Amino acid sequence: MDERIRKHAGILVDWSTDVKKGDNVLIRAHPSAQELVIALYEELGKRGADPVTAYTSNEATRTYLMNREGVMETPAHVLALFEKSDVVISVIADDNITAMGDVPGERLSAMSKAYKPILELLTSKRMTITLFPNNSSAQMAGMSLAAYQDFVWGAVNRDWQEVYDNQEVLRKRLSEACEVHITGPETDLTLNIEGMKPVNSAGKHNMPSGEVYVAPHPDSAEGSILFDMPMILRGQEIEGVKLEFSKGEVVNFSARGKEELLESMLETDEGARRLGELGIGTNRQIDRFTRNMLFDEKMGDTIHLALGYAIPWSVGDGKKGNMSAIHVDLIKDMKKGKMTLDGEAIMVDGKFSWEWS
Amino acid sequence: MDERIRKHAGILVDWSTDVKKGDNVLIRAHPSAQELVIALYEELGKRGADPVTAYTSNEATRTYLMNREGVMETPAHVLALFEKSDVVISVIADDNITAMGDVPGERLSAMSKAYKPILELLTSKRMTITLFPNNSSAQMAGMSLAAYQDFVWGAVNRDWQEVYDNQEVLRKRLSEACEVHITGPETDLTLNIEGMKPVNSAGKHNMPSGEVYVAPHPDSAEGSILFDMPMILRGQEIEGVKLEFSKGEVVNFSARGKEELLESMLETDEGARRLGELGIGTNRQIDRFTRNMLFDEKMGDTIHLALGYAIPWSVGDGKKGNMSAIHVDLIKDMKKGKMTLDGEAIMVDGKFSWEWS
Repeated sequence: MDERIRKHAGILVDWSTDVKKGDNVLIRAHPSAQELVIALYEELGKRGADPVTAYTSNEATRTYLMNREGVMETPAHVLALFEKSDVVISVIADDNITAMGDVPGERLSAMSKAYKPILELLTSKRMTITLFPNNSSAQMAGMSLAAYQDFVWGAVNRDWQEVYDNQEVLRKRLSEACEVHITGPETDLTLNIEGMKPVNSAGKHNMPSGEVYVAPHPDSAEGSILFDMPMILRGQEIEGVKLEFSKGEVVNFSARGKEELLESMLETDEGARRLGELGIGTNRQIDRFTRNMLFDEKMGDTIHLALGYAIPWSVGDGKKGNMSAIHVDLIKDMKKGKMTLDGEAIMVDGKFSWEWS
Repeated sequence: MDERIRKHAGILVDWSTDVKKGDNVLIRAHPSAQELVIALYEELGKRGADPVTAYTSNEATRTYLMNREGVMETPAHVLALFEKSDVVISVIADDNITAMGDVPGERLSAMSKAYKPILELLTSKRMTITLFPNNSSAQMAGMSLAAYQDFVWGAVNRDWQEVYDNQEVLRKRLSEACEVHITGPETDLTLNIEGMKPVNSAGKHNMPSGEVYVAPHPDSAEGSILFDMPMILRGQEIEGVKLEFSKGEVVNFSARGKEELLESMLETDEGARRLGELGIGTNRQIDRFTRNMLFDEKMGDTIHLALGYAIPWSVGDGKKGNMSAIHVDLIKDMKKGKMTLDGEAIMVDGKFSWEWS
């Protein structure tokens, strides 16, 4: 076994989910992640925890849904499995991430509704989501499998305590700030985050991680911003997205093609035109766009804004976060950009103020 | 998808486990059975039943146990999953059936003990065990994958109602019989089955099936028998096993090599020297020995005797079946042999009496 898989498993079990003796551990994985599953069994065996693996497959789910008509109930056996699990480790490793593409929307909705109580249970568990590199995700990233493995394990197999400590500096600065000002090519945007709760995301719920994020006040965005990285929406890529905000709301938008797709997203609901998240990526091992949000939003020297739903724990006590059925991330390269907090520069051309020599 | 896989899935869901709308179905399968899992999802979708697949792997279990020390508890999440399942379909498809070979016996025992309440639950479910052909099982059978697929689906994809009906003739004859007399090369053995309960096994708990079996009275075996087919014990093959019985007990034994292995098995406990089962294989699609008891014991034109534990529902009301920690099957080719019930020939040179023209 590649030693990097063993290290990945150790990080998931120790840092991400803090597995202890006697824990009931549920692993959710596609069969193509079998090597990581075996490495997890090794780590769980050493710690005296009890594993079971539920096998997830887009292809199987697609086949099921194409044949499944009518209302779906929450399956009692799956609910019971989640209820009695202390730890849930989800491993993304589908063979073909487009496999669900032809499933009618109402069938997906029926399943989402049936599984909602199960997914809600997840928030009460020690849980993490990770990815095992395979040819499907490598192809999506436009890389060979070997190069993509280097990329993934470079981003995953890090000293997460050190990442956490470094990000604490940024989190504290954000927690004391009111006005955020972002400038750069075709960009001049201000946001207000006063009293909101920045979150230090350092490899617990997402592996890899490496970002600090916070909910802005939903009516605070003013000005415009160009996102240099492609946006992924319903499996499609939209390039050159530019948004103009007034009183927190998108009042103008443009893109290099597929503008109607962008428009339909903005019209989902009232909250779809307002911001739910400002995130700052710090993981410099993630040095390129790979069409996978688990990685892309943590890219070093970038920031991202999400239209839609604000993660509740990033909203300040007594404050209002944005509400929406969507949460769509858009990424801006900060190698040519500047961010100030209350007029003080904190990030210039990708470097944080405490990194200037 | 090979249409034979789809047919296999349909038989498991309809004939073996009678899946109905709303059933919670647990599939237990090795990743290499993914095509059958997908075919099952198709059938379950059509019927409006809810599937979840627990991933089983000798290799993962081996890795876990090699690292797992001490007492194991019954894992609450696995127990809950089984408790809430209406139907359990287990698919044998390991990549390498020898993978558990180096796990210390006490670790296997610790796991068996922890999982005992879970396996006991299985008897209250609609459940079946089947096999998905892969290179590992094909290699074990000494066949190419393509030839082994023909073999497996030939034995599985049958009209099971017809098999059941045909076997009823045999079951009824056995249920009325007292003395069974088996003769052939180096064989002259009598057993008593008076008042015992022959079972028509036609593809419910085992797929494929095709046998009628009954518990003999534990003290009734008299005489000797040569088993022409190899016996599989702890992964090893023992050829030419010959047993001599007196008052139901093995009083003499021999084999062409590995006699000490045979002896250690006979010394497991008191019941290991007595018979727990007489089985008559009827599945003529199973026309060769493939080193897999799911198939071998159902081979057409054979009988088998099991040393050890008697299956409770094959023991007559108020009668005593044999007790033991083991249940080891030994197969005799009846192409040159004869079986009589109370002096009346029922099987001669492989043909049943009702097949004589």
